[in-house]
Amino acid sequence: MDTSKRSGFRRACYRQLEPSAWPGNGLSPVNKVICLLIVAASVVAIAETETSLHGFAVTAFFVLELFFTLVFTTEYVLRLIAVGENPKYAGFGGRIRYVFSFWAILDLLAILPFIVSLGSYNTVLLRVLRLVRILRLARLGRLTKAWDALSEAVWLRRLELTITTGAAGFALLMSSSLLYIAEASTQPETFGSIPRAFWWSVATLTTVGYGDVTPVTSLGRVFAGMTAIAGIGLVAMPAGILAAAFTDAFQRRARNTSEEDP
Amino acid sequence: MDTSKRSGFRRACYRQLEPSAWPGNGLSPVNKVICLLIVAASVVAIAETETSLHGFAVTAFFVLELFFTLVFTTEYVLRLIAVGENPKYAGFGGRIRYVFSFWAILDLLAILPFIVSLGSYNTVLLRVLRLVRILRLARLGRLTKAWDALSEAVWLRRLELTITTGAAGFALLMSSSLLYIAEASTQPETFGSIPRAFWWSVATLTTVGYGDVTPVTSLGRVFAGMTAIAGIGLVAMPAGILAAAFTDAFQRRARNTSEEDP
Amino acid sequence: MDTSKRSGFRRACYRQLEPSAWPGNGLSPVNKVICLLIVAASVVAIAETETSLHGFAVTAFFVLELFFTLVFTTEYVLRLIAVGENPKYAGFGGRIRYVFSFWAILDLLAILPFIVSLGSYNTVLLRVLRLVRILRLARLGRLTKAWDALSEAVWLRRLELTITTGAAGFALLMSSSLLYIAEASTQPETFGSIPRAFWWSVATLTTVGYGDVTPVTSLGRVFAGMTAIAGIGLVAMPAGILAAAFTDAFQRRARNTSEEDP
Amino acid sequence: MDTSKRSGFRRACYRQLEPSAWPGNGLSPVNKVICLLIVAASVVAIAETETSLHGFAVTAFFVLELFFTLVFTTEYVLRLIAVGENPKYAGFGGRIRYVFSFWAILDLLAILPFIVSLGSYNTVLLRVLRLVRILRLARLGRLTKAWDALSEAVWLRRLELTITTGAAGFALLMSSSLLYIAEASTQPETFGSIPRAFWWSVATLTTVGYGDVTPVTSLGRVFAGMTAIAGIGLVAMPAGILAAAFTDAFQRRARNTSEEDP
Repeated sequence: MDTSKRSGFRRACYRQLEPSAWPGNGLSPVNKVICLLIVAASVVAIAETETSLHGFAVTAFFVLELFFTLVFTTEYVLRLIAVGENPKYAGFGGRIRYVFSFWAILDLLAILPFIVSLGSYNTVLLRVLRLVRILRLARLGRLTKAWDALSEAVWLRRLELTITTGAAGFALLMSSSLLYIAEASTQPETFGSIPRAFWWSVATLTTVGYGDVTPVTSLGRVFAGMTAIAGIGLVAMPAGILAAAFTDAFQRRARNTSEEDP
Repeated sequence: MDTSKRSGFRRACYRQLEPSAWPGNGLSPVNKVICLLIVAASVVAIAETETSLHGFAVTAFFVLELFFTLVFTTEYVLRLIAVGENPKYAGFGGRIRYVFSFWAILDLLAILPFIVSLGSYNTVLLRVLRLVRILRLARLGRLTKAWDALSEAVWLRRLELTITTGAAGFALLMSSSLLYIAEASTQPETFGSIPRAFWWSVATLTTVGYGDVTPVTSLGRVFAGMTAIAGIGLVAMPAGILAAAFTDAFQRRARNTSEEDP
Repeated sequence: MDTSKRSGFRRACYRQLEPSAWPGNGLSPVNKVICLLIVAASVVAIAETETSLHGFAVTAFFVLELFFTLVFTTEYVLRLIAVGENPKYAGFGGRIRYVFSFWAILDLLAILPFIVSLGSYNTVLLRVLRLVRILRLARLGRLTKAWDALSEAVWLRRLELTITTGAAGFALLMSSSLLYIAEASTQPETFGSIPRAFWWSVATLTTVGYGDVTPVTSLGRVFAGMTAIAGIGLVAMPAGILAAAFTDAFQRRARNTSEEDP
Repeated sequence: MDTSKRSGFRRACYRQLEPSAWPGNGLSPVNKVICLLIVAASVVAIAETETSLHGFAVTAFFVLELFFTLVFTTEYVLRLIAVGENPKYAGFGGRIRYVFSFWAILDLLAILPFIVSLGSYNTVLLRVLRLVRILRLARLGRLTKAWDALSEAVWLRRLELTITTGAAGFALLMSSSLLYIAEASTQPETFGSIPRAFWWSVATLTTVGYGDVTPVTSLGRVFAGMTAIAGIGLVAMPAGILAAAFTDAFQRRARNTSEEDP
């Protein structure tokens, strides 16, 4: 096998696997297939947790998981070969650096659960492995170019986000403390300490309001009403700033794109 | 009956029934009446589901439904005649195409339930037919010209909507998986699998928070609090972008309209 | 008593009572006192409903209510005299028109409850009269000039408000119908008809989510999750448009005011 | 000890303790340490309320609290010395004025709880003292320069905030009154007076919706639905205006900062 053939194969791999290296619009055929497989693997991983389904088809789930693991292992190896085309990861040292890069670790996490789960019967560990299988979905993130714009938008608003998050956290603390003062004697189980009151506070300030824990004393209700009214704006603010940052980032990208199109 | 008379009748029908063909402002008299009848038919369909009312006046409900079906059938036939005025649906082939267009199918759905329900005593089918009767309300959509502006606005923001919807879906999956890890042993009925945990996740991330299902373990509550805080922004974002898109579309229309008025 | 003296008194009344006629900034001394009395009367009316307080001081509440009624009656008569200064309500016919104007009716409602309640012992009627006493608070609205700007802002966005309100109403209907289809057999008491399902739908689409009524079937939960996600944006939209309209109105006023100040 | 040495020490203290006097970017080393100690002291104060932790390590908590109190007392004394550098608080009269300034009182509150708690065994008092310990977190506010911009932004929108807060309060009153009319006979404990109905109203209008108190009569549910729909926009408005004011303030600061950078 001569070098030019090998390097031709490497270049083809790189073009197919690295989204920014694909000359056409959208995704390369191989990436499209990987995309579908990632989604399918996640659906299977979710369905597998439902014991009624799992008991029904243990073998089918095993075979599917084996198949996905083989495909993603092949993909991992091909990416390791292809990355040599990228000057940033050239040579042996570059490969080592690539293996410890964010996306490569995520790729590895897509393969490991199956291997680890083979020898394990610990229930909680198995559940965590299933979570890791679903985390494979995050690999789809590599295929979109939106991350840079988003992280830049968040970075531009870091001061606002820090201050409003701090204020929201302070509201959470104050709310928990006030309810602890008012309700600790009446409901020691749920308001007996400030950390215990956090559960109620988070449910209230995010306006979720499960109602499994509620103040019963008059003072507790007055504090609860006050913190609800004062705190909701505070907790909504980081979310609002984040949303505005995302919209800005998208619109800036849209403007840039339309300017590039003549 | 000579052709000119027939074509005069067809033109009058078209003018009265097709909102964009009406020369004056607002709706034509016939469309105003149809509007009222659609609303009335929906109110009747809703009232009919209340068994206490229905048992009280079975005949009245039957007669009203018969009346609405007759009127809407007449309307359907007249629209079929009138649509020949529209060059897009001219000729026999055009008529066939019209019959399978979105609004014509919706019109047909307004007539069918009564006929189907005559021979049926299946409870669930009858309920679905009632839903179809209420869907008649969607026919009011034909009378407004807002759809084009709205769908254009949504289309312009398709990238933002896709990415934020994806992120919201990912938050839903992660949240369900984490709660499944923490709570599956304690509450197998409600958190025993990831699909089962979806119900809790949707109620939490949309901040509805029924409280019929809540985490009880400390770890589950920590995960719940984290996902509540992190996820709320994510789920609110598609809604926010959609709202912004709608406002833009309306303001662009308003500006265009005021520019046209000299 | 000569005419000039009487007309001088009338002019003084008008200046003191009509906010737009007061030459200085802010409110006239008489209006400030009325403002305080309206708030005090509302606080008393609210406290009176609490039977533990009411039983404790029946006479005090009676005397206070008598006092407020006398003051507001005097105010009503003085306003009736003063309004003659306003060319819009001049002469006897003008007075009659004034008596039937929005604010004059509201003023009358501030006096009536006491008189009506004297001869009545019907519990529900007494409760409605207490509500009317609290409605007095709405009289404060006359003292602010914000109404015109607000109503203009709402009027400018009437199309958006109508369409989004219509869409929200449609979402409410669809959601109720779907839950009725899924849950009517299992929970006839709460989902047995579409009007009954409204209570759940309103609580869900506004994200209040009391949890007193929740779907229990799988199909019902799937429908509930779908409508929660799809509907929340729809219900939030009219509120968002209203908020934007208010902000616009305030900023336009602020700009106008700052332009007037040289 | 000669005067120049003393005044040199005073100047060094001022530079280290007063954020605006520090020549470099960010915080001075001393302020960084104080920052960490404030956070640590708050974490300890929160952990101490959890009786399971507290019983485990009474002495450790006592020693830590003693340590924090000593450090913050030293800081208080040094700040009292250093403030002489500030022309606004020069001389003995200036020192007195400083002692009664907002931040100095907050500093004092950081020291007092430990001293007061030494001689006290009253449970509620001890809880309030713990709250005061957590309030120390508010001292972090001195270290940021964001307050001026924020308070200016709030001040610029004071009219909008007043009117929307008034409208939200009016919605709260109306909602409570209506539910009181509808539900007082059925649920006297929770809707028996308007103040009692406040708890339900606050939970509904903020969309928290605990569900511990819900209307059960048809009329009550109709009123509840109406007020939910009408009121949510009203309650969300002050929060929205506040959020917009904050965003404006931050963006104005960001623009000013970037203009200063050449």
